Amino acid sequence: MATGRNHRPATTRSRGIPEATVARLPLYLRALTALSERSVPTVSSEELAAAAGVNSAKLRKDFSYLGSYGTRGVGYDVEYLVYQISRELGLTQDWPVVIVGIGNLGAALANYGGFASRGFRVAALIDADPSLTGKPVAGIDVQHTDQLEQIIDESGVSIGVIATPAGSAQQVCDRLVAAGITSILNFAPTVLSVPEGVDVRKVDLSIELQILAFHEQRKAGEEALGEDETAPPAAPPAAAVTKRTEPGSDGDRPAVMPA
Amino acid sequence: MATGRNHRPATTRSRGIPEATVARLPLYLRALTALSERSVPTVSSEELAAAAGVNSAKLRKDFSYLGSYGTRGVGYDVEYLVYQISRELGLTQDWPVVIVGIGNLGAALANYGGFASRGFRVAALIDADPSLTGKPVAGIDVQHTDQLEQIIDESGVSIGVIATPAGSAQQVCDRLVAAGITSILNFAPTVLSVPEGVDVRKVDLSIELQILAFHEQRKAGEEALGEDETAPPAAPPAAAVTKRTEPGSDGDRPAVMPA
Repeated sequence: MATGRNHRPATTRSRGIPEATVARLPLYLRALTALSERSVPTVSSEELAAAAGVNSAKLRKDFSYLGSYGTRGVGYDVEYLVYQISRELGLTQDWPVVIVGIGNLGAALANYGGFASRGFRVAALIDADPSLTGKPVAGIDVQHTDQLEQIIDESGVSIGVIATPAGSAQQVCDRLVAAGITSILNFAPTVLSVPEGVDVRKVDLSIELQILAFHEQRKAGEEALGEDETAPPAAPPAAAVTKRTEPGSDGDRPAVMPA
Repeated sequence: MATGRNHRPATTRSRGIPEATVARLPLYLRALTALSERSVPTVSSEELAAAAGVNSAKLRKDFSYLGSYGTRGVGYDVEYLVYQISRELGLTQDWPVVIVGIGNLGAALANYGGFASRGFRVAALIDADPSLTGKPVAGIDVQHTDQLEQIIDESGVSIGVIATPAGSAQQVCDRLVAAGITSILNFAPTVLSVPEGVDVRKVDLSIELQILAFHEQRKAGEEALGEDETAPPAAPPAAAVTKRTEPGSDGDRPAVMPA
């Protein structure tokens, strides 16, 4: 890791990237991976921005932090960009994770193909239910919570996934942190307290549903307007009807305020 | 829905909101809900931006689309902002959803408390396995895929959740669309093709893990630098070491390019 640091400090690049850009890198990677699976060789910033649901000017600025500028008239090389973003996110290395709480959700996560393809290897499964101990899930024997500290000590895991019920999540979190875990992905519907230096991210499975609901609502509104076109002049002003949001647009368009 | 449209067109407000802002509204809502659960009455744009992982200037611009400007020196009213964003996303109405594929993931989703609290009501569970038919999951009897069209017709569902294996996802998607579904949340690890007018969003459960990996990588880099402080002058230039990214910052800081 320290090799060649005098010439090109390994962490400088990462430190210069704003947090909001970091949060968008996985979205670009998801869109790029879909293009890669379809063997698309290059992509324009506009196409990629639309696929990732981001404004294209922002995308170009984000990529400038990676030192990636694309080629005018050609766009970005898909495979190289997959590699660049993966490297930036640290996904070119192996990240062992431990999953605590092997109910339906924990079992679904253990079986989830999307982890392995991103460099996340499920190293251990832990559950408090003794009847699960020793039972294989996704090819890995579930171990009992009593062994938690020992498992983490021996497996060298630094990322813990909590998929327990809300009531036991904080206690599990405290034990994970005490055992040396420094990053926690929380699926339990509760807010976790952690000491400084420990990162927690909470997954809300309803986020994408909320975005769909917004569009469903808009479609319903358009249908109502469409029906209105056959109606007398009581229709709203033309400017209000023609104003549409293009996917990925986030420019300096004026805000349309409610009255 | 059409009531009072002449005075204040219902869809104008929604159409003026850029797609990227729409995608951030659920993040604000998640952070605001956490504040609300802790009975915090008001929040500054900086605090909320940090909690949502967004730049505060962007947050203020996003909220201007909602017509919400906060009060100088006081900040935003948490409860009112929860209401405003929920209304904008269409979450103040009931959204029945159907889940297809009741394996571990589908069962976990059926039991997921975060859906109900956001206005998403699980109206039906569908699986191709006849041995599951009639079995209750989360209090709802699983129905067979043969009944899919009839179920959608009778339940008035417009949002479908696909939690099947990748191999059957497209076929399920085609049937859902033919039956009138216009929004699809896809958990299957495959890219779905849909006709125009149908929205699909793909959930990648590894996205938050990728952000954690970025920070883990950075922590590892900082440890390496920390060890170096006791070492001879071979350390990297001070500018590189002191440059840090504040959570939520996304300003006009210069990009630090790799050599």
